[in-house]
Amino acid sequence: MDLSQLPSRLLENAVNEFSKLPGIGKKTALRLVLHLLNQPEDETLAFAHALQEMKLEIKICKLCHNISEEELCSICKNPNRDESLICVVESIKEIIAIENTSQYKGLYHVLGGRISPMDGIGPKNLHIDTLIDRVKNNDIAEVILALSTNMEGDTTSFYIYRKLSEYKTNISTLARGISVGDELEYTDEITLGRSLVNRTPYHGK
Amino acid sequence: MDLSQLPSRLLENAVNEFSKLPGIGKKTALRLVLHLLNQPEDETLAFAHALQEMKLEIKICKLCHNISEEELCSICKNPNRDESLICVVESIKEIIAIENTSQYKGLYHVLGGRISPMDGIGPKNLHIDTLIDRVKNNDIAEVILALSTNMEGDTTSFYIYRKLSEYKTNISTLARGISVGDELEYTDEITLGRSLVNRTPYHGK
Repeated sequence: MDLSQLPSRLLENAVNEFSKLPGIGKKTALRLVLHLLNQPEDETLAFAHALQEMKLEIKICKLCHNISEEELCSICKNPNRDESLICVVESIKEIIAIENTSQYKGLYHVLGGRISPMDGIGPKNLHIDTLIDRVKNNDIAEVILALSTNMEGDTTSFYIYRKLSEYKTNISTLARGISVGDELEYTDEITLGRSLVNRTPYHGK
Repeated sequence: MDLSQLPSRLLENAVNEFSKLPGIGKKTALRLVLHLLNQPEDETLAFAHALQEMKLEIKICKLCHNISEEELCSICKNPNRDESLICVVESIKEIIAIENTSQYKGLYHVLGGRISPMDGIGPKNLHIDTLIDRVKNNDIAEVILALSTNMEGDTTSFYIYRKLSEYKTNISTLARGISVGDELEYTDEITLGRSLVNRTPYHGK
């Protein structure tokens, strides 16, 4: 879409800013901007203000690198969480997903990505050193590697596994297998193969 | 997606604001917000600033209701445009589309929608009165109705046609027919029927 025909530089700016977001093209950006232009003034200003406030005031937890409003995030601060458990995740999206299951009561450690030589991301670009420090300086019973099941996730898991192997902590990873509710027929063969190899005792419950 | 697990109220605010936009759900909103959180501070602030500036400073052209930075929009102000031609459109999106064709050198009139009793939009909610005033008080040779080809667009065209019929101005509408590049086989029958009825002389050029 040719944006040189936009009737206002201000409109053009706003459209350009929107179209920098991932997955938002010029046409969608224009649609969103025109929508905001038709909204009451205070609503659009509240939108802009929420972005500013978020950017200026959100901190990163100095322990687990989760998003926080204070030095320590609400999870690290919570006395009811099990401090001897660390779940290693790529980003805060995984924290949100795991918290939604209500099945985990330990702490987290956000790496900020995964090792990906193709994208120029090595171990030094991730928060791996601080993870090792946490394991070294605290009494950590178990580190759970909850990374993606692709080559980069597996590489990252293996790298962390080797780095942590000199410490006396258990290292585990999430169970891989057929998703609950999935039909065997449509399960991809690698998943099916893995879940055969890692079959679990049947309790008949 | 359950947002009660977001680690920060500020993050939650930003996600909520984003998810108010049309076509943006909670998951996409979270993705966009996390992207902005990872951008350099000045870029996110520029984004928020562009929205504020747009909302506070953009004006509506008092003649044609186009978006403008001054009292009159850049099209109405342009001395090279033909002031005796008015193209009636629903929104500024159509102005942008028509300007992109470089085929039109007249002025515009933005209605701000189309007559739609289902949505509670009647002629009074649109800028039809100001269109009639423009035709009444100026020497307008032709009014081009460039509205959507659906029932609401047709209703609006017909309403305007009736309102303008007492003035000495030509009223035309965009040609309807088979899109350039379309195969006859796949053209819907209403379009095909209309383009048969409105067939044009073949010039062999």
